[in-house]
Amino acid sequence: MSDETTGLPDGEVGRLGRALIEDIPDAVIYADREGLIRFWNAGAARIFGFSPEEALGQSLDIIIPERLRKRHWDGYDHMMATGRSRYAADKLLAVPAQTKAGEALSIQFTVVPLHDAGGGIEGIAAVLRDVTPTFQELKRLRAGARGA
Amino acid sequence: MSDETTGLPDGEVGRLGRALIEDIPDAVIYADREGLIRFWNAGAARIFGFSPEEALGQSLDIIIPERLRKRHWDGYDHMMATGRSRYAADKLLAVPAQTKAGEALSIQFTVVPLHDAGGGIEGIAAVLRDVTPTFQELKRLRAGARGA
Repeated sequence: MSDETTGLPDGEVGRLGRALIEDIPDAVIYADREGLIRFWNAGAARIFGFSPEEALGQSLDIIIPERLRKRHWDGYDHMMATGRSRYAADKLLAVPAQTKAGEALSIQFTVVPLHDAGGGIEGIAAVLRDVTPTFQELKRLRAGARGA
Repeated sequence: MSDETTGLPDGEVGRLGRALIEDIPDAVIYADREGLIRFWNAGAARIFGFSPEEALGQSLDIIIPERLRKRHWDGYDHMMATGRSRYAADKLLAVPAQTKAGEALSIQFTVVPLHDAGGGIEGIAAVLRDVTPTFQELKRLRAGARGA
């Protein structure tokens, strides 16, 4: 059987997907219905400073600044209930995050819900990039443009 | 058997990977040794304007501005030969790309080589984001800062 929309045989799509989520330099994180981390790749370890052993089973709170946690979980629950993000698919999200060492990051991410056999949502996967240098430069330049 | 570094059972990693590369809003593209497109998800279709039917089997040239093709293939061949990108894993690449309609985009991407059973490289997968609005703003602000 071959994947309808993408041309690769079914088994190859799984193999490609597995290689990609394990080895891509981006952070790939999967969290279950309760928001507990169930997948944490090497990119996530590099960007956030937590090893897989430290991150797995923990709440996503470990990378969310305390002041933003309520907003995060409101959005998480909304997606868990509806299957939809509050953000359009073509809008990238850039939000503050934090490392194990407490360092502030700007993270750009996309999300995808994972469905169980019954069509319910069993968790949410995200691909996250550290865009801190770009957003620091933008912030500095915006402030300069306002001051000029 | 369970994945050593990430905690999920093996089959679950494949299922997560498959769901992610098919449904993530990012463009996920896989090209073989010859640079021909073998996987093209819905995100790629949305960002670049080519349907899977139009993109599969084509060269990556369809999304690369002509002036940048030589540089692209030099980098592609380098990664194919060595398994390494010329760029550090923690550096995001932002490069010009083009849509089916000929529109210019700024694309930020990460890459991962796919290995065959013998350890050779059989292709390269990429996760691409359209960061055109951010890079247009950056360019405008940088020009303004120089002019001030």
